[in-house]
Amino acid sequence: MTLILSNDDVDSVLRMDRCIDALEESYREIAAGRAVTRQRSDSLVGAGDGAVYGFKTMDGVIPSQGYAAVRLNSDIIRWPTVAGTQRRVKQPLAPGGRYTGLVLLFSTKTGEPLAIMPDGVMQRMRVGATNGLGVKYMAREDARSVAILGSGWQAGSQLMAVCAVRRIREIRCYSPNPDNRERFAAEMSDFLGVAILPQDSAEVAIAGSDIVLCSSNSIEPIFFRDDMSPGMHVSSIKMPEIDHEALRRADRVGLHMGHQTPITVMAADLEVPDHAKGRGWGARHGYDFDSCPKLPDMVSGAVRGRERADEITCFINDLGLGLQFAVIGGIAYEAAVEKGLGHELPTDWFTEDVHP
Amino acid sequence: MTLILSNDDVDSVLRMDRCIDALEESYREIAAGRAVTRQRSDSLVGAGDGAVYGFKTMDGVIPSQGYAAVRLNSDIIRWPTVAGTQRRVKQPLAPGGRYTGLVLLFSTKTGEPLAIMPDGVMQRMRVGATNGLGVKYMAREDARSVAILGSGWQAGSQLMAVCAVRRIREIRCYSPNPDNRERFAAEMSDFLGVAILPQDSAEVAIAGSDIVLCSSNSIEPIFFRDDMSPGMHVSSIKMPEIDHEALRRADRVGLHMGHQTPITVMAADLEVPDHAKGRGWGARHGYDFDSCPKLPDMVSGAVRGRERADEITCFINDLGLGLQFAVIGGIAYEAAVEKGLGHELPTDWFTEDVHP
Repeated sequence: MTLILSNDDVDSVLRMDRCIDALEESYREIAAGRAVTRQRSDSLVGAGDGAVYGFKTMDGVIPSQGYAAVRLNSDIIRWPTVAGTQRRVKQPLAPGGRYTGLVLLFSTKTGEPLAIMPDGVMQRMRVGATNGLGVKYMAREDARSVAILGSGWQAGSQLMAVCAVRRIREIRCYSPNPDNRERFAAEMSDFLGVAILPQDSAEVAIAGSDIVLCSSNSIEPIFFRDDMSPGMHVSSIKMPEIDHEALRRADRVGLHMGHQTPITVMAADLEVPDHAKGRGWGARHGYDFDSCPKLPDMVSGAVRGRERADEITCFINDLGLGLQFAVIGGIAYEAAVEKGLGHELPTDWFTEDVHP
Repeated sequence: MTLILSNDDVDSVLRMDRCIDALEESYREIAAGRAVTRQRSDSLVGAGDGAVYGFKTMDGVIPSQGYAAVRLNSDIIRWPTVAGTQRRVKQPLAPGGRYTGLVLLFSTKTGEPLAIMPDGVMQRMRVGATNGLGVKYMAREDARSVAILGSGWQAGSQLMAVCAVRRIREIRCYSPNPDNRERFAAEMSDFLGVAILPQDSAEVAIAGSDIVLCSSNSIEPIFFRDDMSPGMHVSSIKMPEIDHEALRRADRVGLHMGHQTPITVMAADLEVPDHAKGRGWGARHGYDFDSCPKLPDMVSGAVRGRERADEITCFINDLGLGLQFAVIGGIAYEAAVEKGLGHELPTDWFTEDVHP
């Protein structure tokens, strides 16, 4: 049977510590050349009225776990300016006002499709776990205080992850909308059992923090050079969040896999922000990202993420990997089978008797 | 609702002439920069005992039709030598002895998943239609006789396509196994209403033919320089079939899209044939494929496929395109909806209410 799982199913079985451990192991497999992951690609065409239709895919295979996966998104995208910064916002135009993002999981032993799941919860957990590994390998061991910039869906899993890898005692939160940051602080305080203090400026939230987590949907910088202090670790969930002058001040900048930008194919004359064209951030920032250590290098021990307590380190979760969806999709699938979750469909519906 | 279609459903609604027309239009859209297609990628890892697990994807978007698609294959692959030539053979290891190849079709208007279908019948029709367009734009208008090398699943659609674009009066068929070529000749004669004569050598089948269709699963050459005669069009469904000395003798060699080889990511130390590593055929053959006209150039009128009656032309269907599956998948989907075919599942199962 092939399992159809919902975000609720996936959410009920995924734990952050397990996701972090499994991804850590998968980076060792990547570093050893046994696992593979194909850089994300974006296919972009005009969707009328300034919107863009984007079809995004990424693939990965983790033979030690026996899984392959493709993660795909079929999105109508706009880039509005909110509170002074430009954001990338998907339009929920599928029936019922919904988004379309899927993970298909396959067996590397038989080739068969094992499960089809929405990508949302997995995306949240894999982004959190990745930045959590950035903290584990780059932040000070004795880091206790965290500032988080952002109060959305991703910000929650960033906090889950940092609390899984360091003994965090205090969290301060800033996001432009006071209602959002107060709701977020209350909800996540309950969830994590750690006090979260909403702040009315980024500067106040950041000052004195050991770790700063950027977790916005901004496509412009939200963390700057003057926000830095010795010993700090600054973590970002996308390339633009940390200003390039801040990167230059850092002693070490780590990247996730170093893909930086997707393989991009786009219609002629399409008008989209530079980053959506797959143009290198390095070229734009005048920063040499190619020389940065990558997470698999740090996890495998080839490179040290931090040498001294007073170093300033940054970690940028530059692009997601299909591999992460194979790994975390595999965890969700196995737990869902054990618990009897999801809709079972005949695997014959998704296989064929002709040699294609 | 999201439709789950079978190969039988797809087969019952796809007609070769319609596929050829729709692909022809999509190449005009590609040439005009309005449609996009992301080069196929292969992610390869070891599967034990000399086998390889391959996860293959390709994406395409045709906004004029309102469709995007990903085509994916999850294969366990071997490369045995049969009748003296090396072949690429997928192992049907999914439950029931089946293969795993899927096309997922999406709306560019809403993002929603419209249909999930096996890729087999579409693959057969899109390969046939592509080489049919090669014949349309490169073979002599008065071509009447065809030789086909191969008697498998793809050979049938090659004949359907050549008969759709030229008034074919005689077909000769060669493949190494006499039973296969006799069965194939009888079946396709009935289907096409054209006499097909099985032959006991490739040379006899080819001699005097206006068009030669290579349609094998060989990854070594099966058509050679001395097989050529003035005015002939030679068509191939994969890069290796036409020997490089024959390509050098040709007056013009057309490619499909010119991708030649997939984007390949593979485990370290994996042992696979050169072509599976994504290494360029041009480098291996010492042939400048980059300068060859591509099918969109010929369809849009930017380049002429044939200048004179006595020219020798070749067309190589170098790599499939995600775009083709968006186009042909769209045709199958619309016809299936009209006829009430397939299993309907709630689209909510494949969408989500979180911004992923």
